[in-house]
Amino acid sequence: MIKKTVCLTVATLVFTMPEMTAQAQSDIVHDAEYYILVAQNAEKWAAEDKALDETLAAFREKNGGKPPNIIYILIDDIGFGDLGSEALNSIRGYSTPAINEFAREGMRLARMYTEPSCTPTRVAFMTGRQPYRNGMGNTSVDISGFGLAGKEVTLAEILSESGYNTSHVGKWHMGDIKEAWPNFQGFNYAAFPIHQQGQLTIFHDDAADEEVSIGIGANNYDDRYTIDGWLRTDASSMVTGVEGVRGENPREVHMKPGERWNETKYHEMNVRYQQQAKEQLRALAEKNEPFFLQYWPLYPLTGPRTTTDQYTTPNGGIYVEKMKLVDQWIGELMAEMDELGVADNTLVIIMGDNGHFTKYSPQSGFTPMIFRGGKGDTTEGGVRVDAFVRWPGIIEADSVVGDIVHVTDLFMTIARLGGAADLIPTDRIIDGIDQTALMLNGETHGRRDYVFIYNINKLEAVVKEQYKLAIPGGNLDNAILADFFDLFRDPQEKYPVSTEIGAWGGAKFVRMIQRHMARKAKYPDEGPAVGIPYEGIENLRPETKTAVEEFLFMMNTPKL
Amino acid sequence: MIKKTVCLTVATLVFTMPEMTAQAQSDIVHDAEYYILVAQNAEKWAAEDKALDETLAAFREKNGGKPPNIIYILIDDIGFGDLGSEALNSIRGYSTPAINEFAREGMRLARMYTEPSCTPTRVAFMTGRQPYRNGMGNTSVDISGFGLAGKEVTLAEILSESGYNTSHVGKWHMGDIKEAWPNFQGFNYAAFPIHQQGQLTIFHDDAADEEVSIGIGANNYDDRYTIDGWLRTDASSMVTGVEGVRGENPREVHMKPGERWNETKYHEMNVRYQQQAKEQLRALAEKNEPFFLQYWPLYPLTGPRTTTDQYTTPNGGIYVEKMKLVDQWIGELMAEMDELGVADNTLVIIMGDNGHFTKYSPQSGFTPMIFRGGKGDTTEGGVRVDAFVRWPGIIEADSVVGDIVHVTDLFMTIARLGGAADLIPTDRIIDGIDQTALMLNGETHGRRDYVFIYNINKLEAVVKEQYKLAIPGGNLDNAILADFFDLFRDPQEKYPVSTEIGAWGGAKFVRMIQRHMARKAKYPDEGPAVGIPYEGIENLRPETKTAVEEFLFMMNTPKL
Repeated sequence: MIKKTVCLTVATLVFTMPEMTAQAQSDIVHDAEYYILVAQNAEKWAAEDKALDETLAAFREKNGGKPPNIIYILIDDIGFGDLGSEALNSIRGYSTPAINEFAREGMRLARMYTEPSCTPTRVAFMTGRQPYRNGMGNTSVDISGFGLAGKEVTLAEILSESGYNTSHVGKWHMGDIKEAWPNFQGFNYAAFPIHQQGQLTIFHDDAADEEVSIGIGANNYDDRYTIDGWLRTDASSMVTGVEGVRGENPREVHMKPGERWNETKYHEMNVRYQQQAKEQLRALAEKNEPFFLQYWPLYPLTGPRTTTDQYTTPNGGIYVEKMKLVDQWIGELMAEMDELGVADNTLVIIMGDNGHFTKYSPQSGFTPMIFRGGKGDTTEGGVRVDAFVRWPGIIEADSVVGDIVHVTDLFMTIARLGGAADLIPTDRIIDGIDQTALMLNGETHGRRDYVFIYNINKLEAVVKEQYKLAIPGGNLDNAILADFFDLFRDPQEKYPVSTEIGAWGGAKFVRMIQRHMARKAKYPDEGPAVGIPYEGIENLRPETKTAVEEFLFMMNTPKL
Repeated sequence: MIKKTVCLTVATLVFTMPEMTAQAQSDIVHDAEYYILVAQNAEKWAAEDKALDETLAAFREKNGGKPPNIIYILIDDIGFGDLGSEALNSIRGYSTPAINEFAREGMRLARMYTEPSCTPTRVAFMTGRQPYRNGMGNTSVDISGFGLAGKEVTLAEILSESGYNTSHVGKWHMGDIKEAWPNFQGFNYAAFPIHQQGQLTIFHDDAADEEVSIGIGANNYDDRYTIDGWLRTDASSMVTGVEGVRGENPREVHMKPGERWNETKYHEMNVRYQQQAKEQLRALAEKNEPFFLQYWPLYPLTGPRTTTDQYTTPNGGIYVEKMKLVDQWIGELMAEMDELGVADNTLVIIMGDNGHFTKYSPQSGFTPMIFRGGKGDTTEGGVRVDAFVRWPGIIEADSVVGDIVHVTDLFMTIARLGGAADLIPTDRIIDGIDQTALMLNGETHGRRDYVFIYNINKLEAVVKEQYKLAIPGGNLDNAILADFFDLFRDPQEKYPVSTEIGAWGGAKFVRMIQRHMARKAKYPDEGPAVGIPYEGIENLRPETKTAVEEFLFMMNTPKL
């Protein structure tokens, strides 16, 4: 690999942004790079926005004065190219017919970037901010005592304030403290597990029995050397699924004191969320206000095979089987929309949250295919996902756009479509960019040509147009070793073009990072909110209370 | 990489095939593996064939008693996923709208295997035989004195004998001796270069000027140390493009004695073939007989940039620019078909001949994307290609099939569709399998579950269903080092599953190879035909005559 010479040290990142407000859209505070684009495109965009506002006004008029409903379906750990294409399906030996059909009914966002793992992508969508800014670049599988701060302003909150009814069903994964939960973050109704699939699919007896996680189960480990009995927190002692309404304490469901969590219960939880997603859809559709429904399935992530009665795909991978099920479920939800008559006045987004969980390749049935890397990587395979948007009559059916989009852009775009843009806070950086123009006017109408790709709190890659600077280990002092890639000519980032464009791009990208860092100096990153795990859950089981006590004792040992 | 234990030595490859004829389709001699499938599926296939024959008879009746016309467009060195999908186009920053539209009008053969490079794929298509059987696993760029033997029976010959008018335009690349040329291999008309793009794009002054091939051009090399002036055969001294009619000596066109070949002439040659393809289409469509037209463009392969006036794709790669042009040209040809009223009674196939020429990545604009490897490799990236088949009203539009197909299958299938199956020789192994059922009945109606993948004369991989045994270096004695891959779960062949399935698959695959080798012992591989280069070309230039004399002197030195 050819190494190149981007001279970049923290010491050089000192000059500050000139004051820019004139051409910036409203008072929203953006990252530095956006102002570069505004300086060059403001006039064109303003004209375009005027026409877009007219289109949106016309829609509202036709829709009884209401903005569109929003449904956001986020699928866990699925790589780019796994959904929405029969041709690509057939390479893998399985099929996702419902999502394929959906893709043809709407627009394919072929260059959608997320964060490299579950929590940060979800935080980015909900807040319009990349999660290194609010300490949410990562969460724990286990009891952790931190989460998304109440002072973060979520899309659910601003849509709610604008008159939307809001519901969340499925994975949440933004912390085990009360202020982080969806029913305290703008949702009128929420059904969700406090933790994630690490707990729900691995830390239980069935997984231990199948040697997925030997030692965690009740009977799968010989404890003759055990001195610290607190080491092995198992799924059953943690809170599992809860349900609650806005501002009120939630309750754990479907777990009795002393009951053991297992694969069957995980499957039942998945089935329940599917049912609840449909129920919420029906309930929301009946009301007179616009609605915002989030459905974030837990499947395709799964653990052992105990719930798989039979193989239904030539691939046979355990995630692939569950992906097929999720596809079928999404098909049912779309059919329900047709039946309820809300297909035409609803914007639906279906997308992945990050690349494959390659730790479980190839048994999962999935390995990276088009891009390199998976979940946790900042190569394109970690952060490029399948993404489809449907809004009949407004967004062109069967269309494809290659413009860059980041998941935070959905926050901005939906806020605008929902008439909630004025409620976006102006005291912090919003990374999202309004992409209404792209969705309504199509290819080449995108308003972003860059992405800063962080791995938790480290900047590991910078994308601008078709170029990507990869910074090994996120060490900016070491960026002299950075490689350049041309993503159009080399989507798998295997042929660095450093020597060819380093002399030009080195300076450009260094200045880009400098601008970004200067902006961070003005709006510093913060940590997450911290608190007592599970506080506010009404019906904690005795074993859960014990687990929290153990956790708090362990957390307090430094202070003892 | 986990290594596994397939014990396989040449010594074990001795037992012979039992006599099998009862259930074999007609008297055609197949490879051993096909009889395994016939033994299990003969009854089902016979019933299916009866219905297919009725469908084909009904078509002929509607078509004035004639079978369908055939157009076969073969594109050079283009990787899987590069054509036919706007979504995948957009990853690369270019578009192939004409082929994308064509793909939607027809069937996508998502698992089409070719040979790993140009000549063998072309030979396989023309003869229905894998080219290790007839010494055509490879050819030289330079003057070579060998080629496809006259005793090989081509698709053009049998279609011709069945009443088709036949034309070939573009790349041929099956040797520089007379008996190998298309107008001596069944084509009534042929316009083609004797050699290939190695000569036409690299061995000339422009390429030397741009440092693509320094030392080959007239003024780009300091010959102070040169003793052997014959070393550097340049493009101009070799025969370039020729044209001829059936059984008659062809003539070189567009080169005068003393003239230098260059990039402009290469571009003119490409433009000429496009025009001739259209002219042939018009001429053939006017006649009362069915026709078989082959158009094998030389582009997207190209050399230096001198003919590229401007960049028209965000990708900007030099092959990508030419691919865009080829796509446009194919669009024009399809439009011409509509105008001539032959779209509905013509089977059109558009496909690639092997994977990317990765030597020119990423400057070409192409690097492997979905599969690993490119031209010359026996990983899927070398032998899996985009392939689309259109026959309105007969082949389902906008369909995708994941069944295995090998390029030799097109020989068998077209022979059947053209009523020429009885003319297929029965004294040699035909590797092709009739896939009419797949094309007409769709997904899961394929009749092949295996491919033997050779690199020139070495068996480097065996595919059966979703499994692939990769034999490093084609050394069967060394097959103890072979890796198994599950192609559905791991299309890039990066996660060997040897330890898991080796114990089962090892024995299965060894027996499969044994059967194949036993069959080869009965029908031994032969070499290519040899002869005097260019003999029969009427208007050889003096410099070409000299080059041939030099070649013959060099060839005869062992005998001196």
